[in-house]
Amino acid sequence: MAVTPHPAVPVADPEGRARLQRWLDGPHAGARDLVRAWLEEPGHAPRPDLEWQEHRTQVMAWAKELADAGGTSIGFPEQYGGGGDVGASIAAFETLAMGDLSLLVKCGVQFGLWGGAVLHLGTERHHRAYLADTVALRLPGCFAMTETGHGSNVQQLETTATYDADADEWVIHTPRESARKEWIGNAARDGRIAAVFAQLETQGKGHGVHAFVVPLRGEDGTVLPGVRIEDCGQKLGLDGVDNGLIWFDRVRVPRDALLDRYAQVDGDGAYSSPIENPNKRFFTMVGTLIQGRVSVCGAAINATKVAQVIAVRHAETRRQFGPPGQEEVVLMEYRTHQRRLLPDIAKSYALHAAQEGMVAKLDAIFSGHDASERHRRELETLAAGMKAVATEHATRVIQECREACGGAGYLRANRFAALKADTDVFTTFEGDNTVLLQLAAKNLLTDYQVHFGDLDPLGLAGFFVGEAWETVAEKSAVREVLGRLADDLSPGRDEQGQLLERETQLGLLRWRADHMLSGAARRLKGGMDAGTDPFEVLVNCQDHVVAVARAHVDRVLLEAFAERVEACDDVALRAVLDQLCSLFALSTIEADRGWFQEHGRLSSTRSKAVIKTVNRLCGELRPHAALLTEAYGVPEAAFGDAHRVTQRADA
Amino acid sequence: MAVTPHPAVPVADPEGRARLQRWLDGPHAGARDLVRAWLEEPGHAPRPDLEWQEHRTQVMAWAKELADAGGTSIGFPEQYGGGGDVGASIAAFETLAMGDLSLLVKCGVQFGLWGGAVLHLGTERHHRAYLADTVALRLPGCFAMTETGHGSNVQQLETTATYDADADEWVIHTPRESARKEWIGNAARDGRIAAVFAQLETQGKGHGVHAFVVPLRGEDGTVLPGVRIEDCGQKLGLDGVDNGLIWFDRVRVPRDALLDRYAQVDGDGAYSSPIENPNKRFFTMVGTLIQGRVSVCGAAINATKVAQVIAVRHAETRRQFGPPGQEEVVLMEYRTHQRRLLPDIAKSYALHAAQEGMVAKLDAIFSGHDASERHRRELETLAAGMKAVATEHATRVIQECREACGGAGYLRANRFAALKADTDVFTTFEGDNTVLLQLAAKNLLTDYQVHFGDLDPLGLAGFFVGEAWETVAEKSAVREVLGRLADDLSPGRDEQGQLLERETQLGLLRWRADHMLSGAARRLKGGMDAGTDPFEVLVNCQDHVVAVARAHVDRVLLEAFAERVEACDDVALRAVLDQLCSLFALSTIEADRGWFQEHGRLSSTRSKAVIKTVNRLCGELRPHAALLTEAYGVPEAAFGDAHRVTQRADA
Repeated sequence: MAVTPHPAVPVADPEGRARLQRWLDGPHAGARDLVRAWLEEPGHAPRPDLEWQEHRTQVMAWAKELADAGGTSIGFPEQYGGGGDVGASIAAFETLAMGDLSLLVKCGVQFGLWGGAVLHLGTERHHRAYLADTVALRLPGCFAMTETGHGSNVQQLETTATYDADADEWVIHTPRESARKEWIGNAARDGRIAAVFAQLETQGKGHGVHAFVVPLRGEDGTVLPGVRIEDCGQKLGLDGVDNGLIWFDRVRVPRDALLDRYAQVDGDGAYSSPIENPNKRFFTMVGTLIQGRVSVCGAAINATKVAQVIAVRHAETRRQFGPPGQEEVVLMEYRTHQRRLLPDIAKSYALHAAQEGMVAKLDAIFSGHDASERHRRELETLAAGMKAVATEHATRVIQECREACGGAGYLRANRFAALKADTDVFTTFEGDNTVLLQLAAKNLLTDYQVHFGDLDPLGLAGFFVGEAWETVAEKSAVREVLGRLADDLSPGRDEQGQLLERETQLGLLRWRADHMLSGAARRLKGGMDAGTDPFEVLVNCQDHVVAVARAHVDRVLLEAFAERVEACDDVALRAVLDQLCSLFALSTIEADRGWFQEHGRLSSTRSKAVIKTVNRLCGELRPHAALLTEAYGVPEAAFGDAHRVTQRADA
Repeated sequence: MAVTPHPAVPVADPEGRARLQRWLDGPHAGARDLVRAWLEEPGHAPRPDLEWQEHRTQVMAWAKELADAGGTSIGFPEQYGGGGDVGASIAAFETLAMGDLSLLVKCGVQFGLWGGAVLHLGTERHHRAYLADTVALRLPGCFAMTETGHGSNVQQLETTATYDADADEWVIHTPRESARKEWIGNAARDGRIAAVFAQLETQGKGHGVHAFVVPLRGEDGTVLPGVRIEDCGQKLGLDGVDNGLIWFDRVRVPRDALLDRYAQVDGDGAYSSPIENPNKRFFTMVGTLIQGRVSVCGAAINATKVAQVIAVRHAETRRQFGPPGQEEVVLMEYRTHQRRLLPDIAKSYALHAAQEGMVAKLDAIFSGHDASERHRRELETLAAGMKAVATEHATRVIQECREACGGAGYLRANRFAALKADTDVFTTFEGDNTVLLQLAAKNLLTDYQVHFGDLDPLGLAGFFVGEAWETVAEKSAVREVLGRLADDLSPGRDEQGQLLERETQLGLLRWRADHMLSGAARRLKGGMDAGTDPFEVLVNCQDHVVAVARAHVDRVLLEAFAERVEACDDVALRAVLDQLCSLFALSTIEADRGWFQEHGRLSSTRSKAVIKTVNRLCGELRPHAALLTEAYGVPEAAFGDAHRVTQRADA
């Protein structure tokens, strides 16, 4: 089938595009450009033609090339061949998400999960033994956490690691079928070693889940005695990643196979840890793996961008219907199409801004510049919430973009098939989204209780009066009635103007986040005080609890986006970004306007004004749609044959 | 990888399941059971292992087997080997959607589109020439409508059919690249003949788009002279269907190749038609193809059901977290999980009920028992709206169910990969959903205008007063304020009880549909009266117009579901169905509670009560989740290896 050249991209001002891309690329532009250049090199574009086993071979070859080119070592310490720049390494990983997503995940497993476990859970002897080979991909490794019986509930994993003091060895064992390791990336074909998560038992006592380094295959690729590996088989997507199942039959590894940064066992089998509380110890260990969550978040955002570029190119070239007797009109002229694409582009920008902030925080903490326990906890909360929201955004928006391209989006040669199938599992891996939102909410509620406990009696009283007043205002509807009367009795009042003020937007999203949080705390405490079974209380409030996390993330997104817009010193760009930020804020408020009205924060008149303003902003931003998406800087090679989507109208 | 036997399905009362399935199966239970039995036969289960060309071969073989078994001829006239039962044929087709969806679409193309074009657009000589061979699948045919340049806008197709009076022949021609036929099912490999839609030109004058029978390949499969066919290549899904591109280079066919039910051309090239208005003629011709839209709607509903059964089985067996120190709890116990699955199950039931009603109407019209022009138009409106809503439901719910199954849902061996990829294009083919919703709204607005015009001056005035009063009530907020005061001043008033009354639910959805319709009519008329360019007026109101169609469908769904529940004479089932109907109604109202508050139909207190009642219904219906989904009667063979989803917890 004939492939015609790319149609001209309708960007009025290519120089403006370059400036916007610089603004988006931020401090790690160099790392992003490195990966972009690699993706543009011949032979590095995604290949929808490969059969799954060929795809695995190709992905491993790509990963080695990328390692050789220095694209995967940026985040590791310099003494082991790394670049020592965590922030830049995440920016590079994010950019890789514009290309083949199996390659992305393969790299995530090798360098992020396996390498990250050695780096963060191990100590110097582990670093010396494994990191240089890991970074160079001479030692393909696995991260063997998930089991058939337990995925999200990691504390209940069933694989055992029992210390045998006589032999000075650990015995790694799969005691029953539900304890087999499942979905382990790099296991089915390439992995030679694994960080295995297992219940540590020594001197007859269990100490909870810890990580152990366990060899899987010899240098020739033969599976070692006591280890059994099966292929998970073909998946819905990501077929270039060799996920496998692993069973251990009393496999023996030396005592120092324990990754012992947070817990040590001496030759007699005596267990010690700098962190006394076992629960806290577990969450500290798991917490070091946060980089994976942050990386998946960034990857989801960038995979979404690829779909958005394709959809906007199609919308700017495909003509359909129009005024009688005149030329048909490009899809982008239609309000329904603007509504379909533009608010999601605004959200991608908000996510991008918040991701940049989150990466900076992670960088500061992991490079040791920020040792604040509170900041680490805030990061954990944010990473959990952001990962859920960004991956959900990816799934929904990629689908929306496919549909917005009509039949053309359904060709395998275009990227949608891979984008959809490969990102699908992002909502599940590195933490199921529903579980993560509850984790984020739990942290917020715990912090809220702390804050609450810190208040002196007077402050506490004042705090409660405030709370109570809000509740009364809400219940009696006095506030809304007053608001409505004000709305309705002031003809010509500039509703839309007020809604466009950043303070109004921030005020609404902040109030919702605070109110939902305090409300959830009250409900949980109320249920407990009433003597209801705590689990039942939680289940009854669960939708409220999840909403708390979502509201928190929305607030963070708007704050981050607004801050980045304010810092933009390019007047022309800033004007567009300012509108885009308003579109994000108001489409977010519009989506939950039921809630804002229920809580007296929007009168019905203002609520309708929100809808009108979103429509107006869509119309005003429509001429910038191509600018906004082309500035993502997606390499042309990453579109595969996607220009076939855009050639149709002109063919 | 080991596959363990199916776990026991937790349905307390298998006899109850059978009764519920009978209720769901309705009048065409026989046709449904025929297809179920066929799907359960060895070798008929979906095969995720096939490479795409093998898949095509398998699908053609299946289609022939199914034709031999009588599963595809039910809707054709008896004299051509059919069963003469249109309603039963759609029920059979719907059921086929539980199996391999490429087979479904292949059958849809052959028997629905090609066969349907001959049957409905042709006359007796065409029926005699083609139907028997079509029904037996001795003559594989195509439906060549879509072109590269025009998909939705069929009136602007560019292929030409020019009458050559000297030769008494039509000359079928592709004048430019954008006129090539694209996405034509059955074309790349199997099709020997096609119904080609082209601009009819005779005696130097164009008469718009008409359909012509054009041979494509000889009996040996060789493509005929003047015809060029290319393969569309691999797609995102449905790879068992051989979609192709077709070009015609002045291909000559005899005069009677014109499917001439609605337009005839005599030997001199004189054109005549029983329908004078060319626009009306076009829409009459296209309108006969409505069966395809109704069939896709039913197929989407049934594909969704497969996903829902898998998700509920998983949710009833997979354990995760739970009260400290106790056994983990099955997912279905969680409110978030109930929220995720149950309202969508309720909507599948509502769609199923409405689909049954729609099929009955179609049956009456197409069998000639109902000749009402108004009914035909209502059916067109309904089919457009329902197809959009049901296919959107399929895309969203299948995704939700995949995620609700966690990693297990990501295995290719389970059905989600195919369900997702194959149904994806349902939102696009047989009419893009956004275009269809506008078509439905346009019909509703036209009918509204007619209704409006029929009123006498007094009636009109009364009508307007009513309208105006609503508008004033809404604007001044008087109504809502009064409502709120009533809510707030009556402590203990049974909000939830009232919300559970069917009349309340119907009242809200009917009011919204009516109000949106009259509001859209006012806005459109207002814009036109103000002298704004009509196209601009339409674009500005486009989101409102689409909302009109959605509100109409929601109303129809609730009315149909409520009616079917009332007709259920099984007291025990009826109690469950009654709750399920309320869950559908209230979750629909909940989703748009922003609108209901804006329009003074829900006070903020009542709006919150809607949320609480949805939660309560989820809790109450939770014990029936398995019953409700198992009663869909999905054949076990249709799950592929999907029990691997449910074995995980017990493995």
